[in-house]
Formats: sequence, C-alpha cells, structure tokens
Amino acid sequence: MAPVTNGRLIFNKIPTGLPEPGKTTVYDTSKTIDLENEPLNGGVLIKTLALSADPYMRVRMRPADVESYMPPFIIGQPIASGGIGKVIRSEHEGFKVGDYVSGVLDHAHYSIPNIDGPFGVKVFKPEFGLKPSLYLGAAGMPAQTAFYGWKEYADAKPGETVFVSGGAGPVGSMVIQLAKEEGLKVIASAGSDEKVQFCKDVGADVAFNYKTVSTEDILKKEGPLHVYWDNVGGTTLDAALENAATNARFIECGAISTYNSKDGVVMKNIDQIYARCIKLYGFLVVHLAPKWQKEFYEVIPKKIASGDFKYKEDITRGLENAGEALREVQTGKNHGKKVIIVSDD
Amino acid sequence: MAPVTNGRLIFNKIPTGLPEPGKTTVYDTSKTIDLENEPLNGGVLIKTLALSADPYMRVRMRPADVESYMPPFIIGQPIASGGIGKVIRSEHEGFKVGDYVSGVLDHAHYSIPNIDGPFGVKVFKPEFGLKPSLYLGAAGMPAQTAFYGWKEYADAKPGETVFVSGGAGPVGSMVIQLAKEEGLKVIASAGSDEKVQFCKDVGADVAFNYKTVSTEDILKKEGPLHVYWDNVGGTTLDAALENAATNARFIECGAISTYNSKDGVVMKNIDQIYARCIKLYGFLVVHLAPKWQKEFYEVIPKKIASGDFKYKEDITRGLENAGEALREVQTGKNHGKKVIIVSDD
Repeated sequence: MAPVTNGRLIFNKIPTGLPEPGKTTVYDTSKTIDLENEPLNGGVLIKTLALSADPYMRVRMRPADVESYMPPFIIGQPIASGGIGKVIRSEHEGFKVGDYVSGVLDHAHYSIPNIDGPFGVKVFKPEFGLKPSLYLGAAGMPAQTAFYGWKEYADAKPGETVFVSGGAGPVGSMVIQLAKEEGLKVIASAGSDEKVQFCKDVGADVAFNYKTVSTEDILKKEGPLHVYWDNVGGTTLDAALENAATNARFIECGAISTYNSKDGVVMKNIDQIYARCIKLYGFLVVHLAPKWQKEFYEVIPKKIASGDFKYKEDITRGLENAGEALREVQTGKNHGKKVIIVSDD
Repeated sequence: MAPVTNGRLIFNKIPTGLPEPGKTTVYDTSKTIDLENEPLNGGVLIKTLALSADPYMRVRMRPADVESYMPPFIIGQPIASGGIGKVIRSEHEGFKVGDYVSGVLDHAHYSIPNIDGPFGVKVFKPEFGLKPSLYLGAAGMPAQTAFYGWKEYADAKPGETVFVSGGAGPVGSMVIQLAKEEGLKVIASAGSDEKVQFCKDVGADVAFNYKTVSTEDILKKEGPLHVYWDNVGGTTLDAALENAATNARFIECGAISTYNSKDGVVMKNIDQIYARCIKLYGFLVVHLAPKWQKEFYEVIPKKIASGDFKYKEDITRGLENAGEALREVQTGKNHGKKVIIVSDD
C-alpha cells in the first residue's frame, strides 16, 4: 500500500489571548505515512477516531520555558489531547489489531502514541453498547474529574447546598448529578439560556445565566454554600467565598475565566477563607485516579447507558476543523462535551 | 468600702480604616462599682490584670448587622478581648478568691465575665514560674493558634520549605519554632529590620523585610513552598501561590493586609490552586481546641519556661492607653505580643 496523507493539527504560534484557528494551530497535510512499514519500535500504530477539546488545553499553549502542570505544546509539532483510536498494527503484546485505545493522542490521523505512564494509551472495551466517543466525556476524563473530586473532597451531607459553576459542561453536569444523588440542593451557573436549561434537565434546583443575572444576588438568596465546585475561578470564586457557610468545602477544578488573560482579578473575600474556616482543595484528575478509577468504571458507564445519568455531546467533524473546536471551548460556544470526530469507526 | 471608679475602654465609633484612639475607642471613667455589693447572680467578680491586643479585633469593629465569625463590638459598651484576671469575689463553686482566670474579658478594671462556652473565663495556674501575662501570648491564644493549625494541617516532612508571613508576631514566631523543630527550612517575612532579626533569633533560615525587599524575588529564590503559613493575605498570598510546590499546604490563619480596607486585592495566581493541587485550610483556633489543647499545655509552657521556645512581649501600661495599643497591632508597630497591663498583680 502506498503511503497515505497524515493530516495533523500543528501548534504554530503561542496565543496571547484566545487561540485562533489558522494562527495558533494550522492543519497540515504535507506529511505522509506508510501504514505497513512505518517503524513501530515495539509500539502500536493507531488510527485516530475521536479527539477531545478541553478548556485546560489552553494551559499547554505557552512558551516552553514556563512551568505548569502539563508540558507545553511544541511549536511545529501536533498538539495533543485525550483521544480514542483503533489499533491498526502492533508490536506490543498488550495491543491487538482492532482494539480500541484511549489516552493522550496527537492531533493526527495516524500516530504511534506513548503507551507508558498515566497519559499513555490503554486498551478499553466500550461497555453496555456505549459509543466509543463517550469515553472522552460522560464516561471519560471530564466525568472522572467530577467523580474523583466529588468523592474525595465534597464531604457532602443530604440537605446541604452546593454551587456548581460551569454547570452545563461535561464536568459540571456530572457534578450536578452526583450531588443530586446524594440529596443536596444544587445551584448551577452557565453562560447561555440553553445551557441553563441543560443544568435543570440534569437536576439542578436553581440554574442561572451568569451573563444576565448577578451571581452575588443568586448566591445571597439561595446560599449559604456548603460546597462549591469551581470550574471558572475569578470573580465567581470571590462571590462564592462571600456566600460560603462556615466549614465550606471548595473543590478547585479549573479557572477558565483566567486562562486567556494575565491581568489578574480583584478579590475582596479572600479573608473569608480563614474567617469561615473554608477549605479549598486544588486537584488534578491524574493524581486521584489510583484511588477512584475502579469505582468510577463500576458505577458510571452503567448509569450513562441506562439513562440515569444524562450527558450532551457537541460534535465537530474533521480534524481540519479542530482549531475552531479549541476556540469554542475557551469561549463556551460549545453545548456539552466537545468531541472532534477524526475518522469513522 | 465605697464604690470605686471602674475605668473602661468604650467602643465609640466604627472606623472606616485604622482604629483611632479617642475616636474609635474612648477611655471612660464615669462609672463606679461597689466591689462588695455589686450583684453577681451566681457569677464571679474579676479584677483585670492584663488584656490582649490582637489584629483580629479589627473584625469586631464593624456595623452590628454585618455577620462575621466573632460578634461585633457594641457602640457605647466596653470592647473585649482575651484577658487575665484575678477573682476578688465569687458566687460560683468553681472559682475561689485569688484564683487566676483567663478568657474573654471586657476592657474594664473590674467585670463580671461570662463563665460559659469556649470564650468564658476559666481558672488556670501559671506553671513553671511563668508570669500570668504569658498566658495571653507565648502560652496563650496566639501560641495555641500556631500549635493547633500546624499540628492539624502542615503535614510537614523534614527538609521541606515553609514560608511564614508575619513571622515576628506571637503566632508567626511560634510557627517558625515548631517548623524548625520538625526539620523544615523556614523563610519568614516581617515589617522591620528589628522584627527580621527576631525571626532569625527564633530560628528562621531566611528572613526578610517585606517593605524593602521583594517577596516574589525571595520566594522564587528560596522556594518552592511546601507549606505557607498565612497571617497576612493579599499580595503576599498571591506571591506564595506563584511559588508553591505541587501539593503544597496553605494554612490560612489571618489576613491583616486586608482588615483595614475594602478595596480588594488583585490576585494573579488563584489558578495555581488547582494547577498545583494546593490545599488551603482556613481555621479558627476555637474549633481546634478540643483536639489539641491538652497536648499544647503539656508541651508549650515547659518549653517557654526552659527557654527552648522564645517569645517577645510588647507591654502597654494602663487601660487608658489601650486604644493606642489596638492601633499599633494593626500597623505592626508592636514588637512581639502586645499586652496591656491594667493592674499589677
């Protein structure tokens, strides 16, 4: 078989604000790959089926000398994210042709991924008839983030009140459902009326559009907060501190409000951390996986398949459109978990 | 015996910024008390020996309708704080004439204090020849704050690095000594060269005057921080977040940098809480007392008496000068634990 084109999304330029398709990332078709003869060196050749576009990826679009919790993308190389693929050739006994794999994949049609460490690809079998792409969202990393963080830090009691910012996203909507299952009153915020409706559809008792309604007013009326699940940081976090109950637990999962600006945020209620004995728990999903992953797979895929837990996917077709998908998750234009379909199964 | 003058420090006006003696508080000598006949209603009559002036008291100088973790002072009534007194008359079997008591006392020469609850006065015996006023500082609430918070949250390992802001105060200097005992490298900040020297005298490896040296620069050079003991909040907290190690523990004890202003602070590194998996623990000493008080009294007074643990007291003589003492602890003019001596023993 002759070499085939291997389309790739290349990291082209470090953005100063939002990532821009065609500038921050460029879709490149100049490379080919010989699927039969490309050397594997004991690894596996993967055909990419679906890729995840996540808010945190903005953190990787930075200069190579700035440290953070994930390595920076490299200019001239494909970007990477969680992905789903199929094994098309293998020199490793743990992988057979036709196996589904999930893990961090290059944004390319074909790749030889890392198979070691917490981000290396692993074989998985979609259960209960779930389509593979769900293992990027409702049964994948965002849902794991929600499940692990909630189990580890929420210390929730029935009747308590939780506020979930970014409530319509794949992490937030899972948190809402976990909290309702445990008998909490759930307040959720989102950035459009359609998203607010989705928060209600998955069980939020109070949901509001933070762009048209004052977060402070809602929290003052509906609080105090025993738990705050923070996906956004910034002034929303400040409002949550102002309306926290004594001994509140704040689960610090993300800070999308600050990813695209370096200006900082005026915070007026930091002193409430000590005054109200608030605990703030920063965490990354990868650190909690050893403790909670088994229970996650026992519980969540079944609930997704049965319809007990709801989800929403927002599909972008074609790797050539992935740059736009990356921008959408930064501005909140997506409705549900953003998945880039690269190839049909 | 004829009634005697009962000088009192009255809360006169809610301050907008720093408390001002003669305005925020007024020393009043218009009341007398009949020490032999004042009705006790089952309580005790106390002669005040010493009173504490603490930064947190600014939080109580607020409008009566604003909630916080301690009740507001009441206009026209004496302010109150931790104090040491001697029983001069008792109708309660738990108190005998001549007993020393400690607890929350009115700023008055004589009072009938609350004897119930966590803030009620209790009988104590100064041990190892310690002078009673030390039970307001090095063997009292500030040292308990340091001891309880450190034991509960520091999770310190030898060789780790801790940063202590407000290192020369009665809380900070105790934290430095606890951290050195456990084999940590200690960085401490303070607001004058004299205070910096005291931080070094009690064991800090690195101590600096934050008014003349950049906190960011020092932390960048001497960090990363595994533990941060936060007495000040604000931009110092932001600098600590920027220089935190992954999984750092931040013990949120106070926020004096923000007590006298409502403007808020620009924070640029809040997103590091999740990115570096930082845990922030807000706490109040009263909540941790049931767990750690016994160990505190077994360990600390002995170390104070032997000289193993060092302390500094800054004495103000006379209740009529207490208003000035309250201002000094807000501006950091005091050198060591500020104690107001009301009457000699």
